[in-house]
Amino acid sequence: MIVVLKHGVSPEKRDQLIAWLENLGLRIHVSDGDYQTVLGLIGDVSVVDMDLVASLEIVDTVKLVSEPFKCCNRQFHPDDLIVEVGSVRIGGGNFAMIAGPCSVETEEQIVAVAKAVKASGAQLLRGGAFKPRTSPYDFQGLKGTGIELLKIARAETGLPIVTEVMSAHDLPLFEDVDVIQIGARNMQNFDLLREAGKLGRPILLKRGMANTLKELLMSAEYIMASGNERVILCERGIRTFSDYTRNTLDLSAVSVLHELTHLPVIVDPSHATGVARYVPPMALAAAAAGADGLIIEVHNDPMHALCDGAQSLRPEEYDALAKKIRAVREAIR
Amino acid sequence: MIVVLKHGVSPEKRDQLIAWLENLGLRIHVSDGDYQTVLGLIGDVSVVDMDLVASLEIVDTVKLVSEPFKCCNRQFHPDDLIVEVGSVRIGGGNFAMIAGPCSVETEEQIVAVAKAVKASGAQLLRGGAFKPRTSPYDFQGLKGTGIELLKIARAETGLPIVTEVMSAHDLPLFEDVDVIQIGARNMQNFDLLREAGKLGRPILLKRGMANTLKELLMSAEYIMASGNERVILCERGIRTFSDYTRNTLDLSAVSVLHELTHLPVIVDPSHATGVARYVPPMALAAAAAGADGLIIEVHNDPMHALCDGAQSLRPEEYDALAKKIRAVREAIR
Amino acid sequence: MIVVLKHGVSPEKRDQLIAWLENLGLRIHVSDGDYQTVLGLIGDVSVVDMDLVASLEIVDTVKLVSEPFKCCNRQFHPDDLIVEVGSVRIGGGNFAMIAGPCSVETEEQIVAVAKAVKASGAQLLRGGAFKPRTSPYDFQGLKGTGIELLKIARAETGLPIVTEVMSAHDLPLFEDVDVIQIGARNMQNFDLLREAGKLGRPILLKRGMANTLKELLMSAEYIMASGNERVILCERGIRTFSDYTRNTLDLSAVSVLHELTHLPVIVDPSHATGVARYVPPMALAAAAAGADGLIIEVHNDPMHALCDGAQSLRPEEYDALAKKIRAVREAIR
Amino acid sequence: MIVVLKHGVSPEKRDQLIAWLENLGLRIHVSDGDYQTVLGLIGDVSVVDMDLVASLEIVDTVKLVSEPFKCCNRQFHPDDLIVEVGSVRIGGGNFAMIAGPCSVETEEQIVAVAKAVKASGAQLLRGGAFKPRTSPYDFQGLKGTGIELLKIARAETGLPIVTEVMSAHDLPLFEDVDVIQIGARNMQNFDLLREAGKLGRPILLKRGMANTLKELLMSAEYIMASGNERVILCERGIRTFSDYTRNTLDLSAVSVLHELTHLPVIVDPSHATGVARYVPPMALAAAAAGADGLIIEVHNDPMHALCDGAQSLRPEEYDALAKKIRAVREAIR
Repeated sequence: MIVVLKHGVSPEKRDQLIAWLENLGLRIHVSDGDYQTVLGLIGDVSVVDMDLVASLEIVDTVKLVSEPFKCCNRQFHPDDLIVEVGSVRIGGGNFAMIAGPCSVETEEQIVAVAKAVKASGAQLLRGGAFKPRTSPYDFQGLKGTGIELLKIARAETGLPIVTEVMSAHDLPLFEDVDVIQIGARNMQNFDLLREAGKLGRPILLKRGMANTLKELLMSAEYIMASGNERVILCERGIRTFSDYTRNTLDLSAVSVLHELTHLPVIVDPSHATGVARYVPPMALAAAAAGADGLIIEVHNDPMHALCDGAQSLRPEEYDALAKKIRAVREAIR
Repeated sequence: MIVVLKHGVSPEKRDQLIAWLENLGLRIHVSDGDYQTVLGLIGDVSVVDMDLVASLEIVDTVKLVSEPFKCCNRQFHPDDLIVEVGSVRIGGGNFAMIAGPCSVETEEQIVAVAKAVKASGAQLLRGGAFKPRTSPYDFQGLKGTGIELLKIARAETGLPIVTEVMSAHDLPLFEDVDVIQIGARNMQNFDLLREAGKLGRPILLKRGMANTLKELLMSAEYIMASGNERVILCERGIRTFSDYTRNTLDLSAVSVLHELTHLPVIVDPSHATGVARYVPPMALAAAAAGADGLIIEVHNDPMHALCDGAQSLRPEEYDALAKKIRAVREAIR
Repeated sequence: MIVVLKHGVSPEKRDQLIAWLENLGLRIHVSDGDYQTVLGLIGDVSVVDMDLVASLEIVDTVKLVSEPFKCCNRQFHPDDLIVEVGSVRIGGGNFAMIAGPCSVETEEQIVAVAKAVKASGAQLLRGGAFKPRTSPYDFQGLKGTGIELLKIARAETGLPIVTEVMSAHDLPLFEDVDVIQIGARNMQNFDLLREAGKLGRPILLKRGMANTLKELLMSAEYIMASGNERVILCERGIRTFSDYTRNTLDLSAVSVLHELTHLPVIVDPSHATGVARYVPPMALAAAAAGADGLIIEVHNDPMHALCDGAQSLRPEEYDALAKKIRAVREAIR
Repeated sequence: MIVVLKHGVSPEKRDQLIAWLENLGLRIHVSDGDYQTVLGLIGDVSVVDMDLVASLEIVDTVKLVSEPFKCCNRQFHPDDLIVEVGSVRIGGGNFAMIAGPCSVETEEQIVAVAKAVKASGAQLLRGGAFKPRTSPYDFQGLKGTGIELLKIARAETGLPIVTEVMSAHDLPLFEDVDVIQIGARNMQNFDLLREAGKLGRPILLKRGMANTLKELLMSAEYIMASGNERVILCERGIRTFSDYTRNTLDLSAVSVLHELTHLPVIVDPSHATGVARYVPPMALAAAAAGADGLIIEVHNDPMHALCDGAQSLRPEEYDALAKKIRAVREAIR
């Protein structure tokens, strides 16, 4: 940690601060410039409250020189993590196509969509059983029944299943789920992160709509600190002033995350845009930007979907898109 | 709900849409302008997926004409709700001063701060027992022990206590807490909202840092739909590009919320700014803007606080501020 | 325009509003729902101040049903506009590669870069002569001399030139420039838009970092209203809370703009990210998303560039990128 | 400037960077921590492109330790600047009430409003002659005639006048204007800043809706670098995702700016909210937060205003508000 003092600070005040920091067990390296003094803190800086130091009257600014995340830090894990889900590999050059309806509705629906997306090349089946809805009056998902229907679709197609958990209380229902999703609204539900991580299943962690990449990594850290390193990160759009799409897809996050961490990074163009006709261009853009996979909503009858029909592709649209995605992947080799 | 069709839509497509909507049980009022056709949907529009209709090729835009929140809607509750906590009243012209440390640390600390803030006019004591921390490596709070220490401080001072719950699993520990806080990061943890609401205690619901006011009200609706109408809303800053304070305090939310809902609206200037010396001006501004109360962090020894010392006022600073707040409240009568 | 009245408005107040609107020359179509009354305004609604009506006590909301932009509205111009610059065509399936240094520095530099980017397939040469700099103490560009150097590079390579104007006062210097750029900070410098438009040259109009797409189109309208329809729009990143890149590239803008307008839409990944190593993935993403071109900074010696060296590619990096861009373009056919 | 190197950088690469920096005329102070090396750059760091250094592969981060603004830096100007406009003083404890219509429309209108706001205690008259409008089809102001009408109102009431300039070309018309306003959309119209500054008149500089406080100060620096130090800063709301008001008023900017600069800071609650009924609470909040003044829109007939009637107070509303503002100012002494 580096502490920059304000111009013209008295030697007494400076020495008081140094004494207080040394008292916390740190060594202090003092560097005097023409205008300002810089303190380099050496040792275990996690004992210092950075915001508190920054708020002191004599301090201009504080800068952390090493990232606070360890388990997911590329610095300590130079090789890409490859998350294996059954025979599917995600990350390290392996591109994952995940698709399925927003909500699981009926056995007929989920099996039909699963077969369709598999035929188009999808390797994992997504489907919501527990649905986070802004309104308590909207359809909340089939819950446990939905998970059972996903398992039937898995049995019929061989596709591993991805589905969202909203509460630690429901985790027992997810023991036989292949990838557990933690949604954007729960990215900082720290209790859920910790408990979900303990199941030992791969976790698909979505970025919250107002969260920085560092916060996303700190949330991954909550999962990984309990010993489960199989975390897949997902960019799904952030909230901005821009008002023509539901969120603003922040594709540069893919490149930045690949530098900061060894975890795979996939993209969700369906929730990022909220509009089915914008999904293909954003999916192709994500593939071109180097994402490790795509999670896309597909519904066989969007006009009668119980949830998010507006952003769902029809199976034939997904099929056409999947072909182009493969071509783009080929083009950027 | 109003559906505006695009210019030049064919009569066949228009009639198909109308037939589909009528099939959902709605009556449709057609209004032809020079350029566009507007459909007014009459009946129970909750059966229609607004986003789906908006995404149809022939539709320009969709507009909901009545708000989706009922329980907290000012339209159906013209009189201000006054939340009573013991002998303290919040809302309807009653201004609540809530103060205390970010975290409960020791009995000595919490009792000392409680006495100090009470002497300055605070009516409720806040203190964190369960702490939402970005990093899993930071101090996570004393948990159950922290709640016990708050109760000791309550017994010593008579101040009702306000403390945050982070997981439905911990709710049994909160049965004797006077006001249960749901933090910004959990504003859309729908499971927690529902379960916390069932305890029947007053709930202090903080706005998420990227949430609209409508989303805040929909979250209040989750609590109130289970029969508990005692919800206090709290503006605590939103996330913007502005980088000199931790968040950007959105004070106009106070006025807008007072129009939309009958629930009391308080302000948290400590988390909004993250810097102790900006707390007094923002607290005074909130009082001048018509807030129903203030929740402020006060610590007897900010330099050694285990959490958020940077934004904590010292008791003597709080005392000076409290006097000015009363004067401002007097000035805007 | 549609005006939705609040629930429970008295017939007198409603009739007063209708009378006031009719007095402005409009016909009013009244539609009564179960909960609310909707007025459809028919006629020349440009005489009504939409914000004023929205602010009236009895009004819930106001909705414009036709877009306020005409000259650049896709509705009236179904075919893509192709902007011709010499023999280069932009839009309507023609992809433009624009490249060059942030600032023109010397004849040697600009000619060398021009030759290099031409060899890699660039069709237009960019280079800043007038530089908008946040600080008055930073290098402000070579101004008129810079434009002369660009012309020399054009003579040597045959590449048409693109350069930014910052003040209407300087426009005489731009009479022989092929494409005049209006930068993000001047997107709502209405005087400059109007005056630059009058020169009759193609205009490259960049989106302001906090501007909506509708505002961008209204600024295009300022240019086009003076009779110059050759406007090229450019997405270059918006300002958000996200802090790892200089701006957040909003790629969905490409798809949305293609629906709203017939003007070509290009992307600037250099300013969007501010970091050279993020430029290739974002450039490829933009091509995959359907952009009509790319404007990219290339410098033969970024370590000694007078401006924005951080985001400049080296010629050999640009060459490798250009090949991949062509492959991606091929892949999405 | 401080340069933090990445962990594990080779001594060769480190020494290359140091040599390159020393070559620019700087002395380098090297500080080795357990994990990282920090270079302190001593000397004239303005010769270094901070972004370029930050983008180097071996560099983790770069931090400027002294602010790049000089003329408006509180560090070099500890005493508040008091801007004198005729007999009115702004800053240093002097609170300025500025009021008037959005647009000057007729002599009758501007004189009537001037007399009304003067009677309520306003000390300066505002009124738009040149109007920045998003649409080229909206009323653009009376221009030169508007300025003449303002002068008539000044002659009738003695109130100095404040009006906005949109183009350097129009500056000759502003020679007899008391305070020249530069609007939010032109905050980074650097040519206009420089030229307007040269007139030697006080400048009211509004913060752009997506600009940081540092950028605002750099724009003030453009004006002051030409020798004119009489700059008044104005917070008028920033653009965020929050959608119930036109902008989000960032009141903490008042406190932060007071620390960073000696220039006076006023607030515009009319443009910040866009809604007349939210203006009084935000005006009172700004006064409570320590602003040096308020600029508020007042119109004698908002229903027939040519511009921004929605946000204009009626004279009697302004009168009631002015009384409360004085009371709040008294309360925070």
